[in-house]
Amino acid sequence: MADKKLVEEITSMEEDFAKWYTDVVIKADLIDYTSVKGCMVIKAPGYAIWELIQKQLDERFKATGVENVYLPMFIPESLLQKEKDHVEGFAPEVAWVTHGGMNQLTERLCVRPTSETLFCDFYSKEITSYRDLPRVYNQWCSVVRWEKETRPFLRSREFLWQEGHTAHATEEEATERTRQMLNVYAEFCENVLAIPVIRGQKTEKERFAGATETYTVESLMHDGKALQTATSHNFGDGFAKAFGIQYTDKDNTLKYVHQTSWGITTRTIGAVIMVHGDNSGLKLPPAIAPVQCMVIPIRQKSEGVLETAAKIRDDLIAAGVRAKSDESDKSPGWKFSEQEMRGIPLRIEIGPKDIENGVCVVVRRDNKEKIEVAISELTARVPELLTQIQKDMLEAARAHRDSHIIEARTYEEFCDAVENKPGFIKAMWCGDQACEDKIKEDTTATSRCIPFEGGEPISDKCVCCGRDAKHLVIWGKAY
Amino acid sequence: MADKKLVEEITSMEEDFAKWYTDVVIKADLIDYTSVKGCMVIKAPGYAIWELIQKQLDERFKATGVENVYLPMFIPESLLQKEKDHVEGFAPEVAWVTHGGMNQLTERLCVRPTSETLFCDFYSKEITSYRDLPRVYNQWCSVVRWEKETRPFLRSREFLWQEGHTAHATEEEATERTRQMLNVYAEFCENVLAIPVIRGQKTEKERFAGATETYTVESLMHDGKALQTATSHNFGDGFAKAFGIQYTDKDNTLKYVHQTSWGITTRTIGAVIMVHGDNSGLKLPPAIAPVQCMVIPIRQKSEGVLETAAKIRDDLIAAGVRAKSDESDKSPGWKFSEQEMRGIPLRIEIGPKDIENGVCVVVRRDNKEKIEVAISELTARVPELLTQIQKDMLEAARAHRDSHIIEARTYEEFCDAVENKPGFIKAMWCGDQACEDKIKEDTTATSRCIPFEGGEPISDKCVCCGRDAKHLVIWGKAY
Repeated sequence: MADKKLVEEITSMEEDFAKWYTDVVIKADLIDYTSVKGCMVIKAPGYAIWELIQKQLDERFKATGVENVYLPMFIPESLLQKEKDHVEGFAPEVAWVTHGGMNQLTERLCVRPTSETLFCDFYSKEITSYRDLPRVYNQWCSVVRWEKETRPFLRSREFLWQEGHTAHATEEEATERTRQMLNVYAEFCENVLAIPVIRGQKTEKERFAGATETYTVESLMHDGKALQTATSHNFGDGFAKAFGIQYTDKDNTLKYVHQTSWGITTRTIGAVIMVHGDNSGLKLPPAIAPVQCMVIPIRQKSEGVLETAAKIRDDLIAAGVRAKSDESDKSPGWKFSEQEMRGIPLRIEIGPKDIENGVCVVVRRDNKEKIEVAISELTARVPELLTQIQKDMLEAARAHRDSHIIEARTYEEFCDAVENKPGFIKAMWCGDQACEDKIKEDTTATSRCIPFEGGEPISDKCVCCGRDAKHLVIWGKAY
Repeated sequence: MADKKLVEEITSMEEDFAKWYTDVVIKADLIDYTSVKGCMVIKAPGYAIWELIQKQLDERFKATGVENVYLPMFIPESLLQKEKDHVEGFAPEVAWVTHGGMNQLTERLCVRPTSETLFCDFYSKEITSYRDLPRVYNQWCSVVRWEKETRPFLRSREFLWQEGHTAHATEEEATERTRQMLNVYAEFCENVLAIPVIRGQKTEKERFAGATETYTVESLMHDGKALQTATSHNFGDGFAKAFGIQYTDKDNTLKYVHQTSWGITTRTIGAVIMVHGDNSGLKLPPAIAPVQCMVIPIRQKSEGVLETAAKIRDDLIAAGVRAKSDESDKSPGWKFSEQEMRGIPLRIEIGPKDIENGVCVVVRRDNKEKIEVAISELTARVPELLTQIQKDMLEAARAHRDSHIIEARTYEEFCDAVENKPGFIKAMWCGDQACEDKIKEDTTATSRCIPFEGGEPISDKCVCCGRDAKHLVIWGKAY
């Protein structure tokens, strides 16, 4: 009975997906709520996932020439106000520092919601010549947005992220960097998070405040809702003009730089939960699993069992696997449930009989398959299985995503799809924001992106107004 | 002439040490000032040093069982006030958030100056049984203290650090952890930063707000002033009582936990500058040098020079050295000055003649020694030289430190030492805070620590009041 308790404590996803999500977040020990509304503690098992995400993204960034820096967490009000669209987008949701120590400040400071304005201020002093370009900087930090409704990882008042900010001599170079970083995110999502994504461009309505173009990678959660997983923005020379970031070019004329920014956040952990999880809890792709293989001894008081479990663990660690063994006094059943709840990709069950026979049972978390493996072959088989799981999880997520894309040619079909067929909707659009607004008002679905691939027209009329269509758009309800 | 310009731009340390320091910080491209008073940009070459510090410390922490977590940056005023000494220590210097978006908050939030109160709030919910102990957590984050006087790295309103926070079943275990982490810092300072430290304990006056005991590692800067380089605090059960952090022990009784905290900050970069730097600029120990070896081509337009420089660089990288080559169109002399200014531990000079002879000149940054090395032996010799430099820099710093420790037996000797002989002063103390206060008022020197080693009495009377002495204390002017 006790064995099942851990699992029974979570709501099933079919019954209430939102409740299932928060149950998993808590039971898998990823976060805790705090005395500060909308802010969470990222607990050790959750933070270890973020560390693996950081490490693998940071390596990819650096391979493209990115250098890390650190800018202040405070932005003076006057600096935030320098770019008109940007301040309108962010001022309503920032936290304001008004006092330092016992004194009121002469100018309010906001806690950064994003750092475009600070980077621009920095660049305006740093960049004077074409020799100073490009600048390809990134920072890992926390940011604050004073959200009304909050949910762990998905929407919190403070969250962790990286924000890249670059400055280039030409428009072409900025466009290329915007695309390049989007592709880094897409590759990272697929190969590390095992989440297939649709790459595309945002409509004007959905663009980042101050950008001339926003690219996005969109992924589909298990409940059929979309999640914007990372974005890459092209600013053209708009910020450069607002902040006076000019350089002397080779031809000795003064020119404005072209800028980009791009970011990904702890939201991705929410995406991993909602793409891969099931009613037994979290399912982590091996690439971001802090523990990849849990060795669980059976009848651990029998002679040699704990020793064999420890040896298997140590051999696996030596083979490069993040392995642990669970030697606590809980029952094996309880340990299985816990390993499943925490999403550990593999477990090894090893008892006296197994030791006698020189074999053990390896159980995959992703499909619960049980595999008999000779103990002597574990250090070869476990890494192979982890590679296989990583691949299979991506393919399973892709199959789910692909089976949840619907084409809508009429407004009736569109409304029916939003209502009854959770997933992405492909539909044509005239390019007029009035149609986007109407669709959002009627259905709560929003335009996710104009996709880079698979954007072939499915009709020549806008699904909403019936006028000539300009783009195929991916629509969906979104987190 | 232009070759010398970079160097001539910095004030000599003998002329004005403070000015030399800020010149180096700027010319070595470590930081930039910002529009936010007291907050700095940590530029790419500076942040890369911090990344190497983080990586090597984090590995050491994890080897002792530390797990990383992330807690909110905001602390509600009521939470900060729960521990009396702590709030008195920090409330006067925190930044207060009073508005979120357009609305005034019902309770002010301070931006964390340190996170004891948040960890206690977290622990009070997490810990219920002896099975939940110990908890050994750490976070890497930024903190804010509203300082009036600020200096890059040494004292800024926002700085980066790590803060470890642990909870234990017994007083002994907490004391052991406090010592253990101090020893991690001491070993790290010596073997990674090449900075010799004195380990000791703070007097009551200098203790962290709320601690029953503060341990410290103190180092000596080139100008003879002390810098508290890392601290480790034992809280006993004081915070546990204020926050109600209790656990049920094996004997089924409720007990309070015992806690510790320990931290090190971006200040260490300031220490590295002031311990190792010279009038040519920064000198980085190889262990934290983002670039360890700069290959500088001479007559780089001659056939084969750039290719050979690139090959040497690539071979060094393959051998595990962080190497770069400087192929810009600046003169070799300018490149030498820049490499010295930035503190890169080794440079390789390679020109047409060298290539003909199969040799090149390797120049050590620490002692400016020039060494002829066969090109074919570089991948073996460069790593050896880096190891040697790391060792020699520690020994040079130790020799400087040891030659700047003075024993004072009378108050006259003490005052003369503070005035005329910059360095650490060993002197006996009665244990009365009044004497500490008088010494500080008369001389500006403060008690740095009661050392763990080398604390043998040098007299039996207090250097200040002449009453019976209790401890030998290390004194000094401090940053």
